[in-house]
Amino acid sequence: MGETVELLVCVTCKRAGMDPGAPRPGAQLARALVGALPEGITLRETECLSNCSRGCTVALRGAGRWTYVYGDLSPEQAAIVAEGAARYRATTDGLVPWRERPEHFRKHCIARIPPMEATE
Amino acid sequence: MGETVELLVCVTCKRAGMDPGAPRPGAQLARALVGALPEGITLRETECLSNCSRGCTVALRGAGRWTYVYGDLSPEQAAIVAEGAARYRATTDGLVPWRERPEHFRKHCIARIPPMEATE
Repeated sequence: MGETVELLVCVTCKRAGMDPGAPRPGAQLARALVGALPEGITLRETECLSNCSRGCTVALRGAGRWTYVYGDLSPEQAAIVAEGAARYRATTDGLVPWRERPEHFRKHCIARIPPMEATE
Repeated sequence: MGETVELLVCVTCKRAGMDPGAPRPGAQLARALVGALPEGITLRETECLSNCSRGCTVALRGAGRWTYVYGDLSPEQAAIVAEGAARYRATTDGLVPWRERPEHFRKHCIARIPPMEATE
């Protein structure tokens, strides 16, 4: 199933000063993405991507592709995340040309990791 | 070969104000790690882990394990990286108990990503 890519959304992060009982921004972002993603992208809520000081955080990955982690997102940016995910899905290796990345993705990349397969 | 884990070292980052022709700190860190790692850990130089403002950067990963990215490292900290890698290698899932992590790893985790296998 190399055609399918995953969009991980961290649903754990709190925002500084937020009501501890209020919905987490990452959970709100994940909710906003349900039904908003093109075919071939699986949404997956994740417990902690350990980018707590720069949430909301998402990661894109797939077999044979570079993994990318993006941060500093808000629940209102679901459309930007969906667009970036679609661009990622359209590649074979996860490397989206710089100019085709949503501006937020260009400026708020937290880390990237080469494909596992490249190491064999 | 699920027993082998990889230690990726970003060899691209520059330090602010450094001589552009000088050896990159990440390359120096990688060099210091050659021969310093326990069995079962493969050292791999990587071109850019996209954590440029908080280098040197390393990542630990392996089949069926969480991937962890650590930053804010210097070439002088090779022994700390080797110790953290050994602790990681000693787990089956990449989750090293908090107190067993080197202090630098506790404070300078950039991101983590769940194992691919957990998604099947």
